Amino acid sequence: MLKVLCVLPVKDSHKQLLTKAACGKCEFIYDEHPSSLDDADIVIGNVPAAMLKDSKVRLLQLNSAGYEAYTAAGVSPKSMHLCNAKGAYGLTVGEHMLALTFALVRKLELYRDKQKAKDWSDCGSVSSVEGATIAVLGMGDIGGEYARKVKALGAKCVIGLRRSNATKPEYLDEQYTMDNLEKVLPRADIVASVLPGGPATAKIFNHERFALMKQGAYFINCGRGSSVDQDALENALQSGHLAAAALDVTSPEPLPKDSKLWDIPNLFITPHVAGNFFLQETFERIIKIAAFNLEALLNGKALKNEILH
Amino acid sequence: MLKVLCVLPVKDSHKQLLTKAACGKCEFIYDEHPSSLDDADIVIGNVPAAMLKDSKVRLLQLNSAGYEAYTAAGVSPKSMHLCNAKGAYGLTVGEHMLALTFALVRKLELYRDKQKAKDWSDCGSVSSVEGATIAVLGMGDIGGEYARKVKALGAKCVIGLRRSNATKPEYLDEQYTMDNLEKVLPRADIVASVLPGGPATAKIFNHERFALMKQGAYFINCGRGSSVDQDALENALQSGHLAAAALDVTSPEPLPKDSKLWDIPNLFITPHVAGNFFLQETFERIIKIAAFNLEALLNGKALKNEILH
Repeated sequence: MLKVLCVLPVKDSHKQLLTKAACGKCEFIYDEHPSSLDDADIVIGNVPAAMLKDSKVRLLQLNSAGYEAYTAAGVSPKSMHLCNAKGAYGLTVGEHMLALTFALVRKLELYRDKQKAKDWSDCGSVSSVEGATIAVLGMGDIGGEYARKVKALGAKCVIGLRRSNATKPEYLDEQYTMDNLEKVLPRADIVASVLPGGPATAKIFNHERFALMKQGAYFINCGRGSSVDQDALENALQSGHLAAAALDVTSPEPLPKDSKLWDIPNLFITPHVAGNFFLQETFERIIKIAAFNLEALLNGKALKNEILH
Repeated sequence: MLKVLCVLPVKDSHKQLLTKAACGKCEFIYDEHPSSLDDADIVIGNVPAAMLKDSKVRLLQLNSAGYEAYTAAGVSPKSMHLCNAKGAYGLTVGEHMLALTFALVRKLELYRDKQKAKDWSDCGSVSSVEGATIAVLGMGDIGGEYARKVKALGAKCVIGLRRSNATKPEYLDEQYTMDNLEKVLPRADIVASVLPGGPATAKIFNHERFALMKQGAYFINCGRGSSVDQDALENALQSGHLAAAALDVTSPEPLPKDSKLWDIPNLFITPHVAGNFFLQETFERIIKIAAFNLEALLNGKALKNEILH
């Protein structure tokens, strides 16, 4: 019997799925806060990376899309299969980005402030997603989901920007590599970013790039806070160059109480809630990936979302 | 030369469109606040109904979808063609309803309140449009636009409710007449209404019907405030039966300062801004309808959106 340690907050329905995938070949330990991996052969969920060294884990199924902590030198046993949860977060983050997009174009953040002041007056002109040119930075599952949805809603031109060349999906009108960013920014009514963190994206949204954006454009970031120069964003909003912006991520997080960002009227901040397990479907998708990979490992088949390390 | 009186706030581009449609057969008077119709043959825009009596107007092209004030007995000359602006508001109201829908399922109204309090904490679980069962009440241009969009976003089941039987559009999964409302309400995760005013819809959303809705459902009204019993809505929200609601319309309007609705946390109020001319495209569409009908009248062709009176 192989030992499967699951650290996720599973319900009975999820246990049933995993048990079925194991075909009687595994015993399960459900422990959200294990003090060690004991002699687990398979781990489901993000355990502290330090626990992995010298373990005999054959498969680590992450619940996150990010995996950098586990591919760092010396962290994971060479023989361990490492799989992430790619695909689980597209729906929840994609819909959060769409929610923020619609909130901005319809000035909902300002209308909520008016409601609090019991003020029935209007905030003037609004924009639409239908007919807009929308640039999406980062074309993984999440960016793809958002792009597909705004195209389905009648966006005139959806432009995808990604690190590498890849076949252009049909829902994109145009696709470029990131070195074309400066050519794309002046064309977009809405710029939506889900870029990852790291040196390549650090403060990629700076004074110069916000200045390149259209007068009256909208900016949305659900990627990593480190990709935005927050002083530059503040300036672009306070000067009226950008119509409005929304951030689900900041740098640092939590955003300090004394940050000036909290009080900018046309900046809408949500506290890094686009992803995580806030939408139940995200968790269902993670368990499905885990069950697939458990069964695949037991039957010597190819794993889904495997990360080479 | 026929005299065309236009009372809308037109720009040069709109004047050009109208001039082209007139083919040299009309002279135009642009006056947003005329004291009389003088001897206008054609009127573009909603003039006070009282001005029409004994006028020689041959075509009144409204900028509104509503026309009730002009079909009342004795208001309009029998020989006058009356056309409304059906089709002009689908985009703007449809997107506002979509914006409110996403705001509710992602708790954006609560997150804006948290932002104001400089509070980075989360508000717990959220819902999605993808996979949801959505009931749309009122299947004119606006309801149709909203239904089409939520279906394109992956709603599992979109149910249309309308006054009369009509061919079911392909973007609806199911369609019923309004007398089936009680059967549909218990099934919907999201109930979105654009019902018109009048006796047939007065307080149609009452205690009993809110109680029929699912525990945790969402309610959105962009139709008429008179269709909602606001005490019943307050109760359904405060008791936690409904997860959240959004109103673009109230009764009366403006909502009085002492209304309890302003302060309900999970109720999002916008001050009747879904329609009007807040979105430029709405105005463009109205002018296109007016130009079409001007040309059609001059050439003895069938008018668009004609209302019999």
